[in-house]
Amino acid sequence: MHRRSFMATAGVAAVGVVSTLPAPAVAQDIRELTMVTSWPKGSAGLGSSAERLATRITELSDGRLQVNVFGAGDLVDAFEVFDAVSAGIADMYHSAEYYWHAKSPAFSFFTAVPFGLTANELAAWIHRGGGQELWDALSAEYGLKSLLATNTGVQMAGWFTKEVTSVESYKGLRYRMPGLGGEVLKQLGGIVANLPGGEIVAALQSGAIDAAEWVGPWMDLDFGLYEGGKYYYYPGFHEPGTALCLGINKQIWDGLSASDKRLIEHAAGTEYMMSLADFNAENGVALATLINDHGVELRRFDDDVITELGRASRDVLDGIGNSDAATSRVYSSFLEQRKSLMDWSDISERAYLNARGLAFSGA
Amino acid sequence: MHRRSFMATAGVAAVGVVSTLPAPAVAQDIRELTMVTSWPKGSAGLGSSAERLATRITELSDGRLQVNVFGAGDLVDAFEVFDAVSAGIADMYHSAEYYWHAKSPAFSFFTAVPFGLTANELAAWIHRGGGQELWDALSAEYGLKSLLATNTGVQMAGWFTKEVTSVESYKGLRYRMPGLGGEVLKQLGGIVANLPGGEIVAALQSGAIDAAEWVGPWMDLDFGLYEGGKYYYYPGFHEPGTALCLGINKQIWDGLSASDKRLIEHAAGTEYMMSLADFNAENGVALATLINDHGVELRRFDDDVITELGRASRDVLDGIGNSDAATSRVYSSFLEQRKSLMDWSDISERAYLNARGLAFSGA
Repeated sequence: MHRRSFMATAGVAAVGVVSTLPAPAVAQDIRELTMVTSWPKGSAGLGSSAERLATRITELSDGRLQVNVFGAGDLVDAFEVFDAVSAGIADMYHSAEYYWHAKSPAFSFFTAVPFGLTANELAAWIHRGGGQELWDALSAEYGLKSLLATNTGVQMAGWFTKEVTSVESYKGLRYRMPGLGGEVLKQLGGIVANLPGGEIVAALQSGAIDAAEWVGPWMDLDFGLYEGGKYYYYPGFHEPGTALCLGINKQIWDGLSASDKRLIEHAAGTEYMMSLADFNAENGVALATLINDHGVELRRFDDDVITELGRASRDVLDGIGNSDAATSRVYSSFLEQRKSLMDWSDISERAYLNARGLAFSGA
Repeated sequence: MHRRSFMATAGVAAVGVVSTLPAPAVAQDIRELTMVTSWPKGSAGLGSSAERLATRITELSDGRLQVNVFGAGDLVDAFEVFDAVSAGIADMYHSAEYYWHAKSPAFSFFTAVPFGLTANELAAWIHRGGGQELWDALSAEYGLKSLLATNTGVQMAGWFTKEVTSVESYKGLRYRMPGLGGEVLKQLGGIVANLPGGEIVAALQSGAIDAAEWVGPWMDLDFGLYEGGKYYYYPGFHEPGTALCLGINKQIWDGLSASDKRLIEHAAGTEYMMSLADFNAENGVALATLINDHGVELRRFDDDVITELGRASRDVLDGIGNSDAATSRVYSSFLEQRKSLMDWSDISERAYLNARGLAFSGA
């Protein structure tokens, strides 16, 4: 397997050095870093965000840190990236922390929680509410350092072959949904199927599954999911601001200069904002295409369904919230921060978006 | 007045240079850059965001770009920063573009528009919807290059000494509100007063004004505004995601290396995300303090009031949207992007926040 390599620059020609000019003590090394990802190489959305992040790191370091990106399956499989970086087989991963739920449910809180935090609220918890410190402690147990790197924004609840008329509709429903959202569906009697994105359409068309969530209009259009299910439901209660993570081998991270750590943090910080901008801009355009060109029918869950989804979500979280010591600490911080952030969002973002909707409804 | 200065490093001791090692062609210069701001030196929120941005630029450049921050009035006055940087008296400013509304109303679109874009939507327009190119063309006319650098999120409508019972309440109301929001108030018969933040409490207490907006719970608590007005109204229809700007003298910008441009873009990109995290986290805490410790009464505008505010906002925008060629281009792009972004936000962020509110209402 590919191992990290270090090589000294040899391409820079030595020039006449005047003794009064300062000179570096050692030649600058070009360092190659391997980034493994859980996305197909070259795919839009998540894949392109990982690529941009790698480019940012390389460019911000003036080419000193060369980040080479591998798609899912190219070096290690999609769900092996965590173990590979933990073991030092690769240097960093771009993936979703909820894939490591089986190691500790605490990881899921750093990706998406049903009725949890939006992209902006998550950033507030991680960067200003103690979230990063809890995440650092959790990741360190696995020899990793993790950073927020990407956010998809609110996802769609997904594609359904039949309408959801009440919470009873979930009984026996075969639904492709990962993470804590899948646990909520099980709680309601649904059957959770996990499939790679590329197999969703065929599974819906063959009747192997009845419903599937993927991401949102942009990526769903790209994958042709409108061919699998007629009804496109919202809101995505299960993933209100899905974060993707840059996970770095901790020995590599600890060995970086303060300056290189900072530039990686800035590459990730900027990409978090830019990826969200990307998803919001592209989703708006793709939504119009889905409705106008593909006859997709948008459906909002009824209030009763939402209330029951909320109840089931609370039950699931309470059940897993104290699975282990790390999860307890994370869950407790999450609950405290959600309360404060939600109280503010209710009178700011939420109240504003409703006011704008009202102001435009008769326009 | 302070002029930009360049000085070569002298503090780095020359070390023994082996001729086979590559060496830099020239010594690296330390470059001092002057940042003037529209905020009191050391003030929280906007002031601290400007300071963090300066530190990010200095740190990301390993001290090569030394950014020295000046508070309002320290080098030039709060509203003179644009002209100072345009003329090359200072190198960069941190301010709000709507302060330059009199030069061209086009500038206001890059700060806040009544019933306009949220922080995330604005980033989508600027970075993915052609906004940056329009802004670049506008700023270039004044010898400037501008970047999104900070966002406060949704602001509050502000502090009122009496209740707003209908849109008639705005007739004759003396209200401290800048920008396009102020134009909307005038449209409704209000009297717009512009006061620095530090004078708001006294003006409310003396009866010189009846209402005032500032920013939101965090900064409003800091300024003691709860002592001036009993009723705290939301949502802030007038500033749904107020952006602050890093404006840079264009000759300075054009003379920077590609690498230095990139690092400034990343410093600003990360600070945009971090400042929003800061405001959301701090507003949640401050809101609880205002209600629990200071007995502040939260009030939401009635639906009728919101509808009328929407109508007046459209009239104002239509009136100024074709003031000059630059404004026409910006307004047209803004309208097109708002439609697409709003259609998506309505079924994502808005629908989700309402669903979460519903799920928690009986919890």
